[in-house]
Amino acid sequence: MQTGNGKEYKMIYLDNAATTLKKPMQVGEAMLNALQTMGNSSRGMHKGSMDAAHAIYGARVKLASFFHCPRPDHVVFTSNITESLNIALYGLLKSGDHVIATDLEHNSVLRPLYLLQKERGVMVDFVPADRSGLINYADFERLMRPNTKLAVCTHASNLTGNVVDIKKVSSIVHAHGALLIVDAAQTAGTWPVDMQEMGADVLCFTGHKGLMGPQGTGGLCIRKGVEIAPLIVGGTGVQTYSTSQPEQYPTRLEAGTLNGHGIAGLSAAIDCLNEIGVETIQTKEIMLTKRFYNGVRNIPGVTVYGDFSGEHLGIVLMNIRDYDSGEVSDLLSEEYGIATRAGAHCAPRLHEALGTKEQGAVRFSFSWFTTEEEIDTAIEAVKRIAEEE
Amino acid sequence: MQTGNGKEYKMIYLDNAATTLKKPMQVGEAMLNALQTMGNSSRGMHKGSMDAAHAIYGARVKLASFFHCPRPDHVVFTSNITESLNIALYGLLKSGDHVIATDLEHNSVLRPLYLLQKERGVMVDFVPADRSGLINYADFERLMRPNTKLAVCTHASNLTGNVVDIKKVSSIVHAHGALLIVDAAQTAGTWPVDMQEMGADVLCFTGHKGLMGPQGTGGLCIRKGVEIAPLIVGGTGVQTYSTSQPEQYPTRLEAGTLNGHGIAGLSAAIDCLNEIGVETIQTKEIMLTKRFYNGVRNIPGVTVYGDFSGEHLGIVLMNIRDYDSGEVSDLLSEEYGIATRAGAHCAPRLHEALGTKEQGAVRFSFSWFTTEEEIDTAIEAVKRIAEEE
Repeated sequence: MQTGNGKEYKMIYLDNAATTLKKPMQVGEAMLNALQTMGNSSRGMHKGSMDAAHAIYGARVKLASFFHCPRPDHVVFTSNITESLNIALYGLLKSGDHVIATDLEHNSVLRPLYLLQKERGVMVDFVPADRSGLINYADFERLMRPNTKLAVCTHASNLTGNVVDIKKVSSIVHAHGALLIVDAAQTAGTWPVDMQEMGADVLCFTGHKGLMGPQGTGGLCIRKGVEIAPLIVGGTGVQTYSTSQPEQYPTRLEAGTLNGHGIAGLSAAIDCLNEIGVETIQTKEIMLTKRFYNGVRNIPGVTVYGDFSGEHLGIVLMNIRDYDSGEVSDLLSEEYGIATRAGAHCAPRLHEALGTKEQGAVRFSFSWFTTEEEIDTAIEAVKRIAEEE
Repeated sequence: MQTGNGKEYKMIYLDNAATTLKKPMQVGEAMLNALQTMGNSSRGMHKGSMDAAHAIYGARVKLASFFHCPRPDHVVFTSNITESLNIALYGLLKSGDHVIATDLEHNSVLRPLYLLQKERGVMVDFVPADRSGLINYADFERLMRPNTKLAVCTHASNLTGNVVDIKKVSSIVHAHGALLIVDAAQTAGTWPVDMQEMGADVLCFTGHKGLMGPQGTGGLCIRKGVEIAPLIVGGTGVQTYSTSQPEQYPTRLEAGTLNGHGIAGLSAAIDCLNEIGVETIQTKEIMLTKRFYNGVRNIPGVTVYGDFSGEHLGIVLMNIRDYDSGEVSDLLSEEYGIATRAGAHCAPRLHEALGTKEQGAVRFSFSWFTTEEEIDTAIEAVKRIAEEE
């Protein structure tokens, strides 16, 4: 697979956990083709509209297969995973419900929960993370209450890159008759994600990170029988005379015109991922991560966060001495042409657990397009910054 | 301006009120460029992230100027106008509030209102439409109550194409201290839209119709001082440690990664519109509409809906005899290669007013790229279908 990046791009892009900048060439081609041929899906019976409907349905089928969602019509498109998580949490939690989250969660989970606490009296408990950013699965058991409606858990931390054993979580959650929402923001496309095998009742994903699709795409895969009330209602092109949103998925959660052009790009990205194989991507990212971790871990003054003994994504979080993480990231960008992300990363509880609230931390994150040479250049840059004073 | 549609596209596309299929060439080019260079806006300080932030801010500036929104940071991006309208209605209406809407409104306004009625006890009144699809402005005055929080009104009907005099509406609404939300789905890009001059407090727009941008884009322009509570909350890249969504616009209403690639396309589309001039587009659409209307109005068996004495967009709604509108639209598509939309059009109250609930209606809608030859072919097709029996 070639990257669509035709220009000689000089930046070493190691901020793939924020968004993958290099995309397969086919993604742009598919978007351009869609832009030239797509009408409005479900809003007519002519070729333009039908082409859009077929392309979008085709993307549902591919995503259902990719994530092992039993029904393609239970794949719902959104504009990003934040919308997916808001839809799932608002659409499932009612007044008096109890929910279990973890310290690993992103603000896309935390802020809806805090608001639901305030507005609907939903009760929230958090599985704590230790100073390595790990959770103890027994805490899910400990926090269960009779009114626990659901647990929500990330598949992997966007800070440390540590992967959570969702199967363990779901077995506890399901034993208590509760549901499990999984945030696959970091794992979709970089790690095998089988929602049935892991026991996710709702799987939320985004298109522009590991899936290497365009921004403006994302969605949820819903297990049959899970009833999520819509967050956004409006025109659907069907059942015009009904005063409420149609009941059936995916229409129930998809009001207004879908991002057909973006979905066409995402669909092409899935084809590319299938061609390479997610396991191959995973193997490469693990290799790159090990190479980087082994290169930086013993540099005097470097602190690496998280646990490297278990399953670990293509993310390495670090600080250099007591340097402000923003300044280190700026140096990396300006002096070495290396793009990373610094500061806080929308995961406030985990920063507190790791003890990086004040300093923030520098995150290096890799993708299928990252090369070993880039890793080595990044190691060298860290070394030099750590040697300066 | 050239259309990006490189292929010999044989369909005569007259479904532009659903989505414009032909886009300026620059839109696709801008999206492709963004796909190759954009990081995640506001999630880093490296070139990829800063490029994204600059491109998105640039689009805000252009849209603010285009719609005469006083502040670029009060231009909020969404994935479509349905989301914009949901945000505005949910974010402004509280329990006990009264709202005035009209029979012209789309389900993207009606369904949120019906749900707010049910869930929050919001009270809703409708300005009725007559059999020509016209409203009486005095009805806004008549329906005002002391607890009227706002009125919501379309700038032009997506069914009849009749343009509403928003200035008249706002003067009544504002005299009572209420707010006005304007749905500019059909007018943005095809009609001059000056939110200050028309007196809109919130202007909702979509990117993929008259603005000729990609699907997956839209937004709201908010007058300073109008406080809309967020519908979706989550990560914003700023104020990570705040438990609630940041207060300032646009971040308040923009959680999660924006559709940077789509916004880049929309931004290029605005440049094209500015180059042509919206008044030039308006003049052309009026000319095309008159040509089509004059060509079909006297064909025996043809009923045209709406009023053609006042301001009128590039939309003509009709039926042929008592033929099912869906069958007529299919015939147009299959026999004549003309794309239209039939059936109900997500505007149920207006269908009832026009008396087209059972039959639906066939909508022909034009764009900047529609030619006089296409109009003449469409007239001829209507004539032939009306002559058959």
